[in-house]
This record gives sequence, C-alpha cells and structure tokens, in this order.
Amino acid sequence: MTDPEPRILDLGFARLDLGREHRQGLPEVVYGPGKTAEQIAAIVTALMANNTGPVLATRVAPDVAEAVLAQVAGGHYQPESRLLCWRPASGRDFGVAVVAAGTSDRPVAAEAAAVAAAIGLRVSAVHDVGVAGLDRILQVRDQLSAQDAVIVVAGMEGALASVVGGLVHCPVIAVPTSTGYGAALEGVTALLAMLTSCAAGITVVNIDSGFGAAMAAHRLARVLEDRR
Amino acid sequence: MTDPEPRILDLGFARLDLGREHRQGLPEVVYGPGKTAEQIAAIVTALMANNTGPVLATRVAPDVAEAVLAQVAGGHYQPESRLLCWRPASGRDFGVAVVAAGTSDRPVAAEAAAVAAAIGLRVSAVHDVGVAGLDRILQVRDQLSAQDAVIVVAGMEGALASVVGGLVHCPVIAVPTSTGYGAALEGVTALLAMLTSCAAGITVVNIDSGFGAAMAAHRLARVLEDRR
Amino acid sequence: MTDPEPRILDLGFARLDLGREHRQGLPEVVYGPGKTAEQIAAIVTALMANNTGPVLATRVAPDVAEAVLAQVAGGHYQPESRLLCWRPASGRDFGVAVVAAGTSDRPVAAEAAAVAAAIGLRVSAVHDVGVAGLDRILQVRDQLSAQDAVIVVAGMEGALASVVGGLVHCPVIAVPTSTGYGAALEGVTALLAMLTSCAAGITVVNIDSGFGAAMAAHRLARVLEDRR
Amino acid sequence: MTDPEPRILDLGFARLDLGREHRQGLPEVVYGPGKTAEQIAAIVTALMANNTGPVLATRVAPDVAEAVLAQVAGGHYQPESRLLCWRPASGRDFGVAVVAAGTSDRPVAAEAAAVAAAIGLRVSAVHDVGVAGLDRILQVRDQLSAQDAVIVVAGMEGALASVVGGLVHCPVIAVPTSTGYGAALEGVTALLAMLTSCAAGITVVNIDSGFGAAMAAHRLARVLEDRR
Amino acid sequence: MTDPEPRILDLGFARLDLGREHRQGLPEVVYGPGKTAEQIAAIVTALMANNTGPVLATRVAPDVAEAVLAQVAGGHYQPESRLLCWRPASGRDFGVAVVAAGTSDRPVAAEAAAVAAAIGLRVSAVHDVGVAGLDRILQVRDQLSAQDAVIVVAGMEGALASVVGGLVHCPVIAVPTSTGYGAALEGVTALLAMLTSCAAGITVVNIDSGFGAAMAAHRLARVLEDRR
Amino acid sequence: MTDPEPRILDLGFARLDLGREHRQGLPEVVYGPGKTAEQIAAIVTALMANNTGPVLATRVAPDVAEAVLAQVAGGHYQPESRLLCWRPASGRDFGVAVVAAGTSDRPVAAEAAAVAAAIGLRVSAVHDVGVAGLDRILQVRDQLSAQDAVIVVAGMEGALASVVGGLVHCPVIAVPTSTGYGAALEGVTALLAMLTSCAAGITVVNIDSGFGAAMAAHRLARVLEDRR
Amino acid sequence: MTDPEPRILDLGFARLDLGREHRQGLPEVVYGPGKTAEQIAAIVTALMANNTGPVLATRVAPDVAEAVLAQVAGGHYQPESRLLCWRPASGRDFGVAVVAAGTSDRPVAAEAAAVAAAIGLRVSAVHDVGVAGLDRILQVRDQLSAQDAVIVVAGMEGALASVVGGLVHCPVIAVPTSTGYGAALEGVTALLAMLTSCAAGITVVNIDSGFGAAMAAHRLARVLEDRR
Amino acid sequence: MTDPEPRILDLGFARLDLGREHRQGLPEVVYGPGKTAEQIAAIVTALMANNTGPVLATRVAPDVAEAVLAQVAGGHYQPESRLLCWRPASGRDFGVAVVAAGTSDRPVAAEAAAVAAAIGLRVSAVHDVGVAGLDRILQVRDQLSAQDAVIVVAGMEGALASVVGGLVHCPVIAVPTSTGYGAALEGVTALLAMLTSCAAGITVVNIDSGFGAAMAAHRLARVLEDRR
Repeated sequence: MTDPEPRILDLGFARLDLGREHRQGLPEVVYGPGKTAEQIAAIVTALMANNTGPVLATRVAPDVAEAVLAQVAGGHYQPESRLLCWRPASGRDFGVAVVAAGTSDRPVAAEAAAVAAAIGLRVSAVHDVGVAGLDRILQVRDQLSAQDAVIVVAGMEGALASVVGGLVHCPVIAVPTSTGYGAALEGVTALLAMLTSCAAGITVVNIDSGFGAAMAAHRLARVLEDRR
Repeated sequence: MTDPEPRILDLGFARLDLGREHRQGLPEVVYGPGKTAEQIAAIVTALMANNTGPVLATRVAPDVAEAVLAQVAGGHYQPESRLLCWRPASGRDFGVAVVAAGTSDRPVAAEAAAVAAAIGLRVSAVHDVGVAGLDRILQVRDQLSAQDAVIVVAGMEGALASVVGGLVHCPVIAVPTSTGYGAALEGVTALLAMLTSCAAGITVVNIDSGFGAAMAAHRLARVLEDRR
Repeated sequence: MTDPEPRILDLGFARLDLGREHRQGLPEVVYGPGKTAEQIAAIVTALMANNTGPVLATRVAPDVAEAVLAQVAGGHYQPESRLLCWRPASGRDFGVAVVAAGTSDRPVAAEAAAVAAAIGLRVSAVHDVGVAGLDRILQVRDQLSAQDAVIVVAGMEGALASVVGGLVHCPVIAVPTSTGYGAALEGVTALLAMLTSCAAGITVVNIDSGFGAAMAAHRLARVLEDRR
Repeated sequence: MTDPEPRILDLGFARLDLGREHRQGLPEVVYGPGKTAEQIAAIVTALMANNTGPVLATRVAPDVAEAVLAQVAGGHYQPESRLLCWRPASGRDFGVAVVAAGTSDRPVAAEAAAVAAAIGLRVSAVHDVGVAGLDRILQVRDQLSAQDAVIVVAGMEGALASVVGGLVHCPVIAVPTSTGYGAALEGVTALLAMLTSCAAGITVVNIDSGFGAAMAAHRLARVLEDRR
Repeated sequence: MTDPEPRILDLGFARLDLGREHRQGLPEVVYGPGKTAEQIAAIVTALMANNTGPVLATRVAPDVAEAVLAQVAGGHYQPESRLLCWRPASGRDFGVAVVAAGTSDRPVAAEAAAVAAAIGLRVSAVHDVGVAGLDRILQVRDQLSAQDAVIVVAGMEGALASVVGGLVHCPVIAVPTSTGYGAALEGVTALLAMLTSCAAGITVVNIDSGFGAAMAAHRLARVLEDRR
Repeated sequence: MTDPEPRILDLGFARLDLGREHRQGLPEVVYGPGKTAEQIAAIVTALMANNTGPVLATRVAPDVAEAVLAQVAGGHYQPESRLLCWRPASGRDFGVAVVAAGTSDRPVAAEAAAVAAAIGLRVSAVHDVGVAGLDRILQVRDQLSAQDAVIVVAGMEGALASVVGGLVHCPVIAVPTSTGYGAALEGVTALLAMLTSCAAGITVVNIDSGFGAAMAAHRLARVLEDRR
Repeated sequence: MTDPEPRILDLGFARLDLGREHRQGLPEVVYGPGKTAEQIAAIVTALMANNTGPVLATRVAPDVAEAVLAQVAGGHYQPESRLLCWRPASGRDFGVAVVAAGTSDRPVAAEAAAVAAAIGLRVSAVHDVGVAGLDRILQVRDQLSAQDAVIVVAGMEGALASVVGGLVHCPVIAVPTSTGYGAALEGVTALLAMLTSCAAGITVVNIDSGFGAAMAAHRLARVLEDRR
Repeated sequence: MTDPEPRILDLGFARLDLGREHRQGLPEVVYGPGKTAEQIAAIVTALMANNTGPVLATRVAPDVAEAVLAQVAGGHYQPESRLLCWRPASGRDFGVAVVAAGTSDRPVAAEAAAVAAAIGLRVSAVHDVGVAGLDRILQVRDQLSAQDAVIVVAGMEGALASVVGGLVHCPVIAVPTSTGYGAALEGVTALLAMLTSCAAGITVVNIDSGFGAAMAAHRLARVLEDRR
C-alpha cells in the first residue's frame, strides 16, 4: 500500500525523505533554525544529488548562509527572506500575489514571495495596503483579480484578509504575522481573526509562515498542472 | 474633598448612589440579571423619586419586565434590546450611528441604540454591512460621516471597526459581540482584533456591551453640552 | 474603483450583497442560526429572484427548515448536514474528497460534503480513518491521490491532516472539529495542531466549519474554471 | 463612493495614505519599530511635502531618532515618550488630563501626553495616584473634572480607571500598561479589568498604547471643532 | 512523626478525617455537589458522633437540603448561602466584615457570612459599595476599620479589593466572583486583578469561594485564640 | 512494511480496525458519545464476530445501554462507570490500584477501574485520600507499594499525584479530573499541576480519561506478559 | 469621611502617601524596578524624614543599591532578596515560618523572609521540603505548628501549600513561584493549583511576590497587636 | 506509617532525601538550573557518599559542568544532553527506543536517551521520522515493536505520538517539545495534541522533559525487575 520502494537517506543526524519530490512535486525543504552550516550543507548536497527540483533552506541567518554557500556551490541567499536556494524552478504558469498590510509585515511577505518564486510561480508583491485607508487596497483590486491565488500577510487585527477575500474569487491564503504589541498577542489575534473571517472560503496557515503559504500555492499550482 | 453631602439611599438589598445623576449627568442604571421583579421595581421607584432624569433597567427578561411594569407605572419595555425605560430623555443635539456587521449582531446593536435613544441622543441604525461586501459600508459612508460618534457592533473577526475607523474622523466606539463559533471564542477574538486595529484612535468596550457603548456616547455628548 | 453599480438589496432586517455572485461566483449563503424561518424565507426568495446560482442556508434546525420549505418551493433539506438548498449546481469538473477521522466528526464532514455537492463539485466521502490504525488511511491513498483537493475533518489531536498532507500533493484543507473532551478544548487543540503541521502547505479553516472548507474548494475550482 | 481622487504615494517600501489628513484631520503617523532611519526620513519628508499638519513618528529609539533628525530638519525628539515630531500643532481648545497610577506607568503616559501635545491639545499630567491611597486621586478630583477628556494609564489591576470613571462625567480613555509581574500577565489583567469596569461608559485602547489614547482624544476634539 | 493515632473513619464511599478537628480546630466540612442526600446525611451523622464542633455542608441544593434535614435532626438550612449547619459555634471574639461590591455578588458574600457565623465569628455584612460611587465605601470606612479582618467579595474588575486594602490595616481576604460577562471571563479577570492589587498584603482565594474566605478568617481567629 | 493483510471492516458508518487486537492485544474499544444504540450494537456485533478478546463501549448513557443490551446478548452495563462490556477478560497477573482524591472524582475512577477489570487486570480501589489529611494516604502506603502500577485520579490542584509519586516506585498514571470550580478551570489546573509534578517519572493522560489510564496500564501489563 | 488632613508629598516624579504609615502601620514601600538610584534615594530620604517606621525598597539590582546606599546613609542591602532597608523594626511578637519547596524557590523565599524580618517579625526559614519526599516536611511539622503564620513558597505544581495547609491550623499564605518550565507556565500552574487547594482556608498572593506574603503577615501581626 | 528512619541530610542550602534510593530505586537527581557549581558539587559529593546508585545532574551548562567535574572526580558530561553523570548503571534488561520527529527535537531526545542510559536501560535512538513522510516511521516499525517501551519526542503538532501509539503495543511515553513557532505556542500545542491522541493508552510528560520520560521508563523497568 505504501510506496513499493520508499527512498529514504539516513545521514546520521537526519533522515531524508527523497520520495517527497515524487509524492509532492518538490524536494524536502530544509528548515534552518537549530541546524549548523555543516548539517545544512550536507542535507543540501544530498538533495541536489538525489532529487532534481529546486533545493531550499528557510530561515537561515546571514552568517550561517555564508558558510553554507561556501560549501555548496551554485546557491543564492536573499537576506530579507532569509532564504537559501539552489536550482530555482521557473516558468510555471501560475500567478500569485503576495499582499502585505504594513511595512512591518514585509519579512514574512518576503519569505512567501521568495519561496514562491524559487519554486517557479509568478509573484506579484503588493505592500502597505492596510484597511485603515481603503483606497490603497481598492486601487490594486484589478491586479489582485488577475491572479490564480492571493497570499494576504497581516498582523495586528488581520482585517486585510477579510477585505481581500470579499474582493477576489480565487483562493486566498491568509498569513497572520507576529507584528503588533499588547493585545496582538504575538500573532494569535490576527490568527484568530483570519480564522473567523466573514469572507467565505479563506484559509489560514501558521503565524509568520510565509513558507507555508507559498507551499499551499504550490499545491494549487500542481492541480492546474495535473489538469493540463 | 469628596462630595460635601454624598446622597446614598440604603434599600436593605441595594445601596443607591443618588449622587450619580449630579456627578455623571444620568441616574444610576439598573443591571437586571440576578434581580427579582420586586427588587427592580423598588430601585426604579426610588430612582424616580430621588432623581429627575431617565430611569433604565437593562437586560431584563420579558416575564420580569412585565412584572416590573405592573408595579411601576409609566414604563416602556423593548423586547429586542431587553430595555426597560421610564421618563426617557429627548432632544439632545448629538447624533450617533449604531452600525452592525451582521444580522446576528442585532441584539447588541439594539441595546446600544435603545439606551442611546432613551438618554436622548439621536440614533441612526445601520445594519448588515460586513466587510466581505465592501460596497455595503461604502454606500453609507456619507451617512456615517455626518454623525458625532459611531458605535460599531461586530462579532467574528470584528474587521468592520477598522474599516469604519478609516472612513470617519469622529469617535468610534467598537463593541465586540459573542456571535460566531469556534475560533471566535465567544467574542474574545473580535475584542482582541478591535483593540489592535490599524485604524488609530478607536476605543473598545466589553463584549456584547451595547450599554457600555451608549454610555460612552453619553460622555461624549456631555462634553459638547458643557461647552455650550 | 469599486463596482460601477453595486447591487445591494435592503430587506429592512438584512442587506443582501447581490453582487457577490458576480464577484465570487456564488450567491451569498445564508447563515441560519439566529434567524427566524420568515427571515430565511425572505432572504432565500430575494436571492432566488436576483441571482441565478444555487441558494443555500446552513446550520438550519429541522423545525425551522420545515417552516422555510413550506414558504419557498423547490428546496431540499438534509438533516445530517443541516443544509437547506435550492437550485443546486452540478457538473463542475472538480473532485474533492471529504475525509473524516472518526464517527464523531461526521456532522462537520457532512456539512462540507453537502455544501460542496450543492455548488456542483464531485464529492467522495471517506470516513473513520483515524491514524491510530494507519492501514485505514493507507488503504484509501490512491482514492485521495485522484482528487483535485482533499478536505480533512478531524477533532482531538487532528493528526490525520498531517498524515494526509504527506500522502497527497493536491491542496489539503483541514477542518478541526470540536469533538473530544478535556484537553481537546472544544476544537482548539486540533486547530493548533493543524496549523503547526509538519506537512508543508496545509491550510486550515475555523473549528467545525465544514462550510468554510467547501467554500475554499469552490475558490480552487474557480481557478481551474477560469483557466479553461 | 470612495474619494474621487484617492491620494496615495508609493515610495517603493511604503504606500502613503496622503488623503488621511483630509479624512481624519491628521496626516498618517509613522510607527517607528522595524523601520530604518532612512525609511523614516523618507516617509517624513514626503508627509511634510504633501500634507500640512503635524508629522509624527512614534516609538523611535534614541539612535534612530538622532539619525532621522540629521536627515530631516526642524524635528524634535523627546526621549521619555520616544516621539519624533515636526510641525507640531497648537492652540486647539480641548483639555485632556493624562493620569498615571504609578511611576512605572510613566513611559506610556509620556507617549499619550507627548502625542496629544504635538497635535495641539492642552495636556495636564497627573502622576502617581494609585488607588491604594485614595486621597491622592481625590486631591486632584477638581482638576480632572475641568477637562474635556481624561486618559487613565495604569498597569497591574488597573483599578484607577474605575475610580476615575466614577468621579468625572467626561469621556475616560483607559490605557492598560504592561507594568507588573506574575498574574499581571504583561498588561492583559489590566486590560480585562478596565473592559469590565463597573464605571459605565469607560472605553479602552490597546496595552501600552499611549498613542492610541491620544488619537482617541483627537477624534473627540474633532467633534467639538466640527460643531463650531 | 505523624499523629500517633490518626483518626480516620471509612464509610465505604468516603474516608472521614476525624483528626481534622484536632489539627485545624474545626471538623471536616462536607462539600455538597455530587453527593446524594443519603451520603451527606451519613457523613454528617458520623461527624456529629465523632467530633464536637459545628458540622457544615456547603453548596447544598434546596431539595437535597430538605432530604438531609429529614434524616439528621437539629440542622438548619439557609437558602441564599445554600449552607446546612448543625451545632453552630458562637461567641468567638473575632469580628469580620463581609463587603460585597454589587448585588450580583450577594450569593457568594452570603456563603462567606453564613460559614463565618456558623463557626462562631462576629459578622458584619456590607453590601453594594462598588467603586464607581466612592462615597459608598468611604461611608463605611470606620465600620471596616473596627474589624479583625475584612472579606471583600467582587466580580467584574474587582477593584473594590484594592480600595479596601488601602483603607484598612487588618487582613483583607479577596474573593473574586464569576459575576459579569464577556471580558469578565467568569471570574478570572477579578481573580487576576485582585492578585495584582497595588494595595500591599491583600490575599486571595478561589473564584466564588465564600467558604474559603471564611475558613481563612477561621485561621486568623485561631491565632488570636492561641495567644490568649 | 505495514501488515501484509490489514484487516479492516467497513460498516458504512464506521471502518473497524480488526487488526488492532493483533497489534495492540485488545480489540478496538467503542467510544459511545455521538453514536446511536443501533450503531453501537452493529459495531459490537462485528467486533464479537471478528475478534476474540473483550469488547467494550465507554461513556454510554443508561438508556442507550439498555437498548444496546437488548440487541446484543451477553453484555453487562455498570452505571457508575457507564461501561458496557461483553466477554470480559480475567486472570492477568498485573495489579493496579485506582486511587481517588475525593468523592467527586469517583466517576472517573470508576471508569478506570471498570475498564481495567474488564480487560483482566487485578484492581484495588482506594478512595477519598486527599492530601489535606495526609494520614489517609499514608495509611494505604503499603497497599499501594504492592501494586504493579498506580492510577491517581484527582481534580482541583491534583497534588495527590505528587505525593503518591514520592511514596511508590512503580509507574504512576495521573488522571486529572474536571471536578472543582473557578480556578480549577474544568480540569486544566490539575492537568498542568500533574505535568509539572516534582515527583519524577509520573505520566499523565487526558482530563477525566479513566479509560486512557486503564489502557496505559494495559500496555504495562503487556510488557510483563511479553517477558514471560 | 476621608482623612481630615491627607498627608501627600509631591516629589515631581512621585507622589508619596505619607499617611500610609498612620493607616496601615508601615510607611509606603518603594518598588525598585524602573526607578533610578536618584529617584529611590529621594523617595527614601523623604520617607525617612516624614515617617518613623522602617523604610524599604524591594527588587533593587546590586549596582543601583550601591548607588542608593552612597546617597542615603544608614541603609543595608541583602543581595539574595534584593532588599534595601533603613531603620529596620524589631521585637514584634509574631512568628512566621517561610517554607520553600525547592532550592530554585529560594530567591522568592528570601524576599519574604527579609521583608518580614525588616518589619520586625520573627522569621524561621525552612527550605527544600518538596512533597516528593514527605519525610522532609513531616520532620518540621512541629516547628511549623508553633508559628503564628506560615508562608509557603513553591513553584511547579505547588502541592506543598496543600500539604502544609493540612498540617497546621494557623494562617497559610501561599506564594507561587515562576520556577519550572513547560507546563509550569511561569508560575501560573502553581498559582492555579494553590487557589484550588483541597486544604481549606489557604490564601494566595501574586506569583513570585515574597513581598506580598510578608505584608499579609504584617496585617495579621497588626490584628494581634491591636488586641493587646 | 512513614519510614521508621527517614534519611534526610541538611546541607544548609539543600535538604537531601537520601531515602529516595530506597523508596524509588534511584538516588535523588540534581536539577541544575539556578544552582552554582559549588552547590552541585556539594550535593553530588553527598549523594555519592550516602547512596550507591548512579548520581545525575541535569540541564547543566558547559561551563558549570566543567567547574563541577573539577571538584568531583569520576564524572562525565555530555554536551548535547547537558547531563552530568557519576557512577552510571548498566546491564538492566529493559529496552527503550527514543524516537524523535525532527532534528530540532534532538536536544530533548538526547536528554531522554542519556538519562535512560545512565540509569542502565538499553537505549535505541531513532531520529527524524516525522509523519509527513510515513515511510520513515514504517521503516522502523519492527525496531520499535521489539522494545519494552517507546519514548516519542515531538514538537509542532506532535502527531508522531499517535502514529507510534497505533503501531506498537508497549507503553508509549510522549514528550512534547517547544520546537516550532507561532501556533506551536512553545510546546503547548504538542502537549495538548498528545493528551488527546486517538491512540489509546499513550501517556504524556511535561514539555521538553526528556528527563521525566526516562524516569517514567525507570518505573516501568522496576516493575519488570520486581517480578523476577
């Protein structure tokens, strides 16, 4: 019932799921925090050798990134998104807008955009369109309506997700962020607000998870690609 | 330093703050839950005799209301808001809009509107203008801008408060409601969202407290009246 | 920037967003709780007259449903999902599996399935495949892999979402349910667990919101339809 | 329905809502955290050029403030409130008292007072009047009663808001602070206590949001000014 | 090291700690909820036979109380406090005031007062002295100062405990109550507020635990009695 | 890698994991809530036919139990534990004590004891040994030390688990209960307290889960049986 | 009704309640955090001049303490408790035991002991008597029984308070501490556990508030002193 | 009833429970945080002298460990688990697998494995088998089934515990970890999920408590040893 030949590679400190590329359409992505540069380099090298798609490491600090890049050639690091990437994909026919409510939400939006771009999606970044000035979001309404999916990144009360959800008919993936203070409860308020949005059909990922939103977009793109 | 002559009336089961009308501009308001019809009637009678302004009892169940009205003449009961009122005020030059996001928020909005009307404010009720269809709230933008204050009543993610806060420049009093389910957490989500609104200068009262919002509007009206 | 002609119908107790069908591809859906049979009937009648797609009312109690059906002809009521439906859609080329972890999760799964079917999606129901017996979910692996989207409905620890997310590459919409007791915290535990799933790209809707999951599937289907 | 000519300025990293001054009576206020000195300077420069009112940046660290002041002439920085200000307003006929319960609440009170002063309100600061020694607050009762609004800043149990709310009849804006430890829960206890105050008509803003309280006072002042 | 002869009586369904009267100065008190009238009667009978002090059963519903009284002679039931009592004590030289903030707090205050009276303390009940009208509590200041201890019973924001704590120098035992709604969180807000009171040396018992407060007063009285 | 022949039986409304008896040593146990008598009867009948061990249904209400027993012969119902049982096991050489802190904890203790007995373990019930009278628990110390495992059932502050954990060296399974009020938070307080016990090596199951504790004891017994 | 002559001293940055010594029997105590050495020194100097009792400053960091001592002669600093003290009291006939569950609880216990000693109470310190080894606490049973009050300091599950409460009959003041990790929730678990203790009449102060416990003991001592 | 001769050693700053080795089969374990190297060395020396089994100190920072080792000969420090150990046990016939979901969970798994090994259990470490790639855990199924107990270490949604619980029939001890971000709530989500697992008979210890899990395994091993 399971894969006739599960492809697993045991590196001693990690057990790589090489079959993930076959099952999900993308190699396993390396989560950076808590790993040394040596460990990341070893995993990346193994994924490069055993898979064919883009290889990514997320949330990598600048100094660690530098050390990894020195060990594994051909990579690229983007500081704002903290994303390390080798062998980026391109040319998938799927457009996703990444919409951020405020300037403080930019790092999370940057992660979503960088991951989406690295896996080959067409990304439009729209920033600083908080609902306190509705004209800003109404101004980009047509731009959003032309997308295959919209990722909404917002902290504080997260109201932007509800407003965007009402404006477009494509999938809306809401990413609560931990920006704000006090009653923002480090993103919990935005998370709860997005989950209870009055705009039907919005879905939500974890707080600050730009990565999760990009991967959800990947799943959407896969469905379109399957149909061709 | 305190009132030279504090006016307190001890009814045995309650200690009435008769001086409140002097200090705050309105007699004490009776909170109905947990009180018998006899107790409410006794308090109302005492307030009618010792104060001159409107006498209100909030959150009174229909059967209790009927029993109280039978004991104290001249009162009026409004079932949707569950408000009992004697000697309503009128003609204060202060306009307040009570804006409700959805039909489930109506009971709370009704309490806000009924109390505001009973203390003499001019009330405009605007209902069912949730942000999932922005046109609905944009349609009443001018109506809201003409008010002295706006009370926004919303449950679920409470995003309406942020949108209204961005549209008008007068005081916005946000009332979270316990409508919704799951992650709405019986109003806590709307409460937190309103407190962290990106629209500056919004203030918030307790969950489901239409009464509290109306009393906040009363304080605003008093400032205008003091200035005349 | 907004619709040149926003189509809003004010019924006195509700303000219908008639333009939603144009913007989102489906008429507004009536949320049943807190509305009388008369109110539901009036809204349904208006939506039937002014929109052309399926008209739905969710979470309607049996006695209310009976009263509404007596007032508006042509409707159908399904007790398990508590869904009232007129003018159901059909024949959309989009397959969605609704997978429930346990028998207690059936009512929520039923709502997801009934709404998805009513808006024309192809629905496969898979029940009782909790992860304590992995063979059950592995047995339906191929069935799930053939779908355009999978809705996973699970309470308690919600682990089924992570397992399904690892098995399929299409979009996975996780619905936490309020089944369970004690530390299940009425669905909050499943909600948090699904949000922190180690399976990348899973998205989550509100606790018990079978409706929300179906609407998220609708948004996915719309993207495919737009592309044809 | 929206502004015929929404005035939005896209700086690349931020989208300024230049129309806010027209809609709300004050230019957009810059929230400092997470922005570089260069970004703040660019935004301030643009607001100075395109709006006419006071330009403020809140919660700016001293070293950032120094760098910004070096780039944009005519500004002033106040360390205790961490407020940067250009073109302060003056002479608005609206008096607001900022009352702080304890010495630990001073930074939040300082932000409220500095922002209120910068937008032209008349500010009276009253400090260290916690309710454990009632004489302290009773001593300033007359001073408070002469105001158009009172901002109450308190951490721990936040009881000062209830006591002040009972003493004055003007609007009371309560600001919970994150002072205290243990069960103070970083301001959540004071927030909840203020929301459930037995003094009717008190409104509440976010934890530590001296800025929010000052902006709420601005909305009050606008109503008075509209009436003249 | 433990009692040379622990006195324990096993009734089959309960294991009575007969030595408690020796250790603590009072027989074990029966907690009513979840026990049948037969069980309460059996425990009371055993305590009457094996201990010499007052025998109490708390939180007993009226119908259960009636059935117990029919089985064990000499008892008394007080409906407001739901206390059953046999062999009440009297004449202990210790005065305790039970101060309640509002009329909704009366049942909890009644339990505190009834238990304190049944174990022989001198009780003064002071009701309806919420801090929104400070004159009410200032009026009874001298009455409170004459006590050996003050029990403060308050829900909502619980500010009365801080105010009383500042007025008197004797022990203050604060009892948060579950009155209030919304952000009162069924007593949790008052509990947290009382724990973080700015009045030094206040102690707190469980939500709604009038019984616990009375027993704390008993411990205080014992210290005085030990000293004589 | 998985079972060569997973034994799953699809009843239409439930998917029975017949292989569980092979994997875990006990047939699947039916969780009663939310199932009709007909559904329980059908599942029980199938388990009786396809497995050989004891068949249990937990948390079954008396009227449902009666209806099930009428449809499936040979069963037994115990009202206090709400357990339905067919084909009980016996004679396993493993002794478990079920220790309850107070009389209110009895229903949960009863479920633990009844399930443990039905699967063949030797059960000793010890009741009403709360730590406020230490002699009670010290009195049964030797009885507890003679067991293979101890299940501690306690609500409120759950301190009994720590005390028992310090007295015995065998496995201690702590079951927090939802007894208590106010700060007991429906069992969450006891749960947290047991998880942070200063007695090393205590393990904890879900609130009120007497069933879970008995199943944990089953796993312990299996290890001993495997070793023989 | 209030003091005929409230004695308040305004230092500009603080408003001293000089009457507190008269009302409560002790001068105001200075809470150190957030105050500069200069501010503390000025307050201490003023209290020394205008009151006659012991002057204390709590939670003062070593470097700040050194600076204050250099400015105000005659003081003493104790590093473990972080207490600064001038003019300590002595010879009050009231014995209090400070019992700590573990070595991590020592700093909080030290604050309780140091403050109690500084205000003249007789202090017995008992350390490291956690309930996982009951013999340790049983060994000091007689020592505890000889006190006028017992302060129990415990983190993690806080069970020591229940055990001590059952052993002694004098007042027990429980201080939860923030020691522990994970489910200890920084002291909230111990706080909740102590509030729901099965030992009747225990009272609780804020997390880590050794100061609060000592002040509660002061109130107890005052009652005894009043009686002489 | 208690030990005839409780063996307690008072070191002044700590009170050692020397009898614990007799009662529980292992000497007291030293919890490192908050203790100086001198204190740890003194306790270890005393335990070495008065007990005969392995002496452990957990969560010791590297520099402290170095200082302790310099004072007490014969010890060993393992950096990943932060465990200091003297006189390790060996050769107990009990096999325990320590299974970690991800590489971030390794430190907690390392503590569990190191403590279990130090007290003489046979440890198999299995790492990086998260449920997003089921083949990884299915691959080690036979290895797990051969153990006497399995410790499952997982953060985020903690689903691995449910999956393992369904695969093996021996005791499963789940250790939630604080890895993850946002809705992982520092381990609370994994904790709640494990407590509500659909796999019957799983037990749970505190967040990050590898030590607690190893001690629970010790209790299991003792039962087997008692039976021989």
